[in-house]
Amino acid sequence: MEKKRILSGMRPSGRLHLGNYAGALENWLKLQEEYDCYFFVADWHALTTNPAAAFSVEENTIQMIIDWLSAGIKPDLPLFIQSKVKEHAELHLIFSMLITKERLERNPTLKEQVRDLHAETILYGHLGYPVLQAADILMYKAHLVPVGEDQLPHVEITREIARKFNQTYAEVFPEPAPKLTTFSRLPGLDGRKMGKSNNNFILLSDSPEEIQKKVRTAVTDPQKVRKNDPGHPEICNVFKYHQKFNPEEVDEIEKDCKSGVLGCVACKQNCAAKIADYFAPLREKRVYYENHLDEVRDVLSEGTRKARAVAEKTMEEVHKAMKMG
Amino acid sequence: MEKKRILSGMRPSGRLHLGNYAGALENWLKLQEEYDCYFFVADWHALTTNPAAAFSVEENTIQMIIDWLSAGIKPDLPLFIQSKVKEHAELHLIFSMLITKERLERNPTLKEQVRDLHAETILYGHLGYPVLQAADILMYKAHLVPVGEDQLPHVEITREIARKFNQTYAEVFPEPAPKLTTFSRLPGLDGRKMGKSNNNFILLSDSPEEIQKKVRTAVTDPQKVRKNDPGHPEICNVFKYHQKFNPEEVDEIEKDCKSGVLGCVACKQNCAAKIADYFAPLREKRVYYENHLDEVRDVLSEGTRKARAVAEKTMEEVHKAMKMG
Ligand code: SF4
Ligand code: SF4
Repeated sequence: MEKKRILSGMRPSGRLHLGNYAGALENWLKLQEEYDCYFFVADWHALTTNPAAAFSVEENTIQMIIDWLSAGIKPDLPLFIQSKVKEHAELHLIFSMLITKERLERNPTLKEQVRDLHAETILYGHLGYPVLQAADILMYKAHLVPVGEDQLPHVEITREIARKFNQTYAEVFPEPAPKLTTFSRLPGLDGRKMGKSNNNFILLSDSPEEIQKKVRTAVTDPQKVRKNDPGHPEICNVFKYHQKFNPEEVDEIEKDCKSGVLGCVACKQNCAAKIADYFAPLREKRVYYENHLDEVRDVLSEGTRKARAVAEKTMEEVHKAMKMG
Repeated sequence: MEKKRILSGMRPSGRLHLGNYAGALENWLKLQEEYDCYFFVADWHALTTNPAAAFSVEENTIQMIIDWLSAGIKPDLPLFIQSKVKEHAELHLIFSMLITKERLERNPTLKEQVRDLHAETILYGHLGYPVLQAADILMYKAHLVPVGEDQLPHVEITREIARKFNQTYAEVFPEPAPKLTTFSRLPGLDGRKMGKSNNNFILLSDSPEEIQKKVRTAVTDPQKVRKNDPGHPEICNVFKYHQKFNPEEVDEIEKDCKSGVLGCVACKQNCAAKIADYFAPLREKRVYYENHLDEVRDVLSEGTRKARAVAEKTMEEVHKAMKMG
């Protein structure tokens, strides 16, 4: 049986942090073993919330791709940049005639984002985010889209647009199914969502020293002031990192933290060391890619070539169905 | 001094009628003498109000272009089909991040169209109509856009998007000015707006017999029942056709209609004959183009090639300004 096709994208955010790893990249590493994966840099999407994001796209893309490859994403996959496959823009325009403004306004994700951005107004293209996403997904006739619970409404819009196109013109697009994924959410050093703008992140590519320095600043159980105070690991951010990157010692740490045998200073040192160990192979591969940027660019241009070949074929079918060039 | 550039488009509506002629094509014939004109078939725009319009686009485009050429539009101008210059879709996507949904909702033309279409909902792409129009205009850095009073808000949106792009990225787009044009509005045979769906039209390509037949059905002054009844030309549709296509006899007709010397039957016969005469050269050229469809297609593909060359250059500047491929 042929492998099912999966499409997934990431906004070009530069070097990735542990939150990106646990929330997306780690999942991709599993998916690529089982599925026919198309992974892309969603640079046009990055503009929907901030048009000025364009300025840093190029450098951010390269740094992110280096992280993908260094983490083990296979370089022979179709890894591509959305804006280099212009067909996405055309399909987006065609799809924009197949969904109503009112339907897009009902999209719950939009409402949340608007609240997060403290926006008084919504960009036209922000409203159309799910339309561009539908173009991304349907262009490759993906069978599955890995999403968290909160992204389910977007896949539903994609399915509606696929149906509407098929009804209006001719059967071209299969309806993709959501592949519900529970992403582990790793908190930032201060307990908020890990993010570049919160300045509470650890990069996959941070040096062991850097990781030590950052973990030292992490917020732990505020009631554990002295080493021997009994701690509450369940509310400690460092403990969450242990759970993720040091699973073997988790039970022991939990016991010793609670009993007061283990103090935060030592616990943090150990945690930072384990994170550094975990990403040691990545750092090593990163050095290689940093010294072979041409290779990174080749991976991207070869990936884009592959993606474009599929996109051109889909657009041929689209034009035929619409009887329109 | 270099000629100023003008961009203007027409939806692919097939063979044109007298309303299209008086409302647009006649104006183009004048513009092409004075300006650097880009005339295009707005086929993507046709989808904004009816996605199924795609099905008839190809045939409608060819028939419309034949009318353009037969009426005297110069075949060496860049005459092109919007959907064949894919750059419009990309620029549309980029522009969609530079204008708010709220701004587009305030567009008065939208409100009118929604009322005319008796629509409960608005397509996302219909809301974005002025965004696609901005892409059309700015792609060619047109200096002037010929519009009627009611279209002024669209040009204003284009100017806003140009400013926003220049501010956000770098100075790429000149702000186009509206070229306010009073289009003569020719009523349909029944007095409503002349249109295909109203079935009250005379085609530029109708035969003299067909024109006679149609004008015979035209609504005149209802109070002039018998030949000798005094008429009111100012409320007669046929008189409006005389004003347009038979200006020399207008004064005499007015006098004779009012005095009751002229009856409607004779007046209509005369009117139909004058319309037929007016378009005799067009019908003749049409026969030529109908027998030389390859030539029509060559005009289009050469025009599209010229347009695309400009579009590619503009997109290069856009990418450079955004630092984004
Ligand atoms: S000992 Fe470790 S798990 Fe317990 S509160 Fe301190 S840092 Fe957190
Ligand atoms: S005579 Fe001519 S102008 Fe007068 S009402 Fe009849 S058709 Fe109209």
